[in-house]
Amino acid sequence: MPSPPLLPPKPLTPHDLRLACRNGTYSTTTSLTIPTVQCNLLVLPSRYAPSFTQLCARNPVSCPLLHSTLPGSKTTPLAPGANLATDLPKYNVYKDGKLLAEGDGIASVEKYWTEDHVGFLIGCSFSFEWRLAAAGFPPKHTLCVPVRCVPMFRTGVPLSPAGEFTGGCLVVSMRAYKEEDVAEVRRITRAFRRQHGEPVAWGWDGARMLGIEGKVREGLVDFGEWVGIDGEVGEVPVFWGCGVTPQVAVMESGIEGVVISHVPGCMFVTDVPVEDEEVSGLKL
Amino acid sequence: MPSPPLLPPKPLTPHDLRLACRNGTYSTTTSLTIPTVQCNLLVLPSRYAPSFTQLCARNPVSCPLLHSTLPGSKTTPLAPGANLATDLPKYNVYKDGKLLAEGDGIASVEKYWTEDHVGFLIGCSFSFEWRLAAAGFPPKHTLCVPVRCVPMFRTGVPLSPAGEFTGGCLVVSMRAYKEEDVAEVRRITRAFRRQHGEPVAWGWDGARMLGIEGKVREGLVDFGEWVGIDGEVGEVPVFWGCGVTPQVAVMESGIEGVVISHVPGCMFVTDVPVEDEEVSGLKL
Repeated sequence: MPSPPLLPPKPLTPHDLRLACRNGTYSTTTSLTIPTVQCNLLVLPSRYAPSFTQLCARNPVSCPLLHSTLPGSKTTPLAPGANLATDLPKYNVYKDGKLLAEGDGIASVEKYWTEDHVGFLIGCSFSFEWRLAAAGFPPKHTLCVPVRCVPMFRTGVPLSPAGEFTGGCLVVSMRAYKEEDVAEVRRITRAFRRQHGEPVAWGWDGARMLGIEGKVREGLVDFGEWVGIDGEVGEVPVFWGCGVTPQVAVMESGIEGVVISHVPGCMFVTDVPVEDEEVSGLKL
Repeated sequence: MPSPPLLPPKPLTPHDLRLACRNGTYSTTTSLTIPTVQCNLLVLPSRYAPSFTQLCARNPVSCPLLHSTLPGSKTTPLAPGANLATDLPKYNVYKDGKLLAEGDGIASVEKYWTEDHVGFLIGCSFSFEWRLAAAGFPPKHTLCVPVRCVPMFRTGVPLSPAGEFTGGCLVVSMRAYKEEDVAEVRRITRAFRRQHGEPVAWGWDGARMLGIEGKVREGLVDFGEWVGIDGEVGEVPVFWGCGVTPQVAVMESGIEGVVISHVPGCMFVTDVPVEDEEVSGLKL
């Protein structure tokens, strides 16, 4: 199976990409080869904004907060001109913690985003996949044809609660690498401090520490799609904090009202170059 | 048993207190009634300073970094005139991860603190005990005669690693409160964001989630001294992040060279008023 080219034939701009997400041409932002930062989105009633901001501050590895909007605003300086209510491929809408039947994977949330809603943009590990690929470590899910979404797992590691947000555990994304490459992969992603940074655990000992060894060995993902780990060539799982974490925390905390999130793997593409998020000169 | 007065007969200044710690009059800073911020101390070879700073940034609830010194400096703007190498009651000195026989609970570390060492001051939950007491919730260990050090436990919750610091789990301090008071106790300490803030878990479900239910039920502390939990009057354990966490992380990461720490419960007393650390207007 030949690898797809690392750069598309005609590079799209982030603006083009957002339009393609808006009109349904792109149904996921996984494995994009555009080197700008991608974000998780969570939209909450304004009364929960202080506690949610604090939840992010207390759990910065899984919930690195990049921007929060004013109540009612659907814009962000991370992508001037973009509309957060339409420019992600797919959204979920919840009411009182339950997914609305009419809000399951929908293309626009204009009708749910009220004057009282605050949008939170949270860093995403998709932002450093381009850099991993450029360094010779393309994540395996980006090489699948058709592309797959990164595998994600709910761990047994509790979050530090904040105010109303007392539920939830760390969610991680998983990429398989050869054991001998883990140090370099750690070094590369360490520089992306607001995009989950270096891994939270690696190897089978790491999977055990996170309480997910069984699920990972059996390929039972909680979100995204499974991609194998080839032990015969020395691959081991490597785990990063994941922006689905705050989504799960919010759903499990039983808060009231309408909450909007992206569908895992269907992120917001910003105009911020990946290089701007990279802290140079970091050694392991 | 009458409670000791909440304020000492002759209030000491932080400077007086540090002198009393330096000359051995005070062998612990637990249950002090002086309302200034107390700190954990960790002193590392300078080559580990970037990774340790990042460890704190990735684990801010247990490792809230308040100040780091220049290499070789033993001073801090948190307490002008103080000497970090002499003004804590007791220190431990480690070499290559092992406690030195001659560095076990010693009164001064002047001879170990080289021009290459960097001191890190980390927030401490002792800082909000004064406020808890003032609000009618004095922690039980502060009412014991003689006073006891707060009970501390190593949990099973892994830290987010950073560079060389790949080991260690969250350490928590425990205070028992009536179940009906937990919400108010959470609200009070929530305001002390750089002093571990609100609890990380509470109740027996919380103990289970942290993986320490057995140890807590049996009173088997890892650090500090046991204080009972009176279930008959409705008390449950409440757990806060603890600044012993980074100490354990450093020891378990197998780094080389001389490392200095305070002895758990023997903190650095700053000049910073507790009020300055309190974020007002926080609701739960």
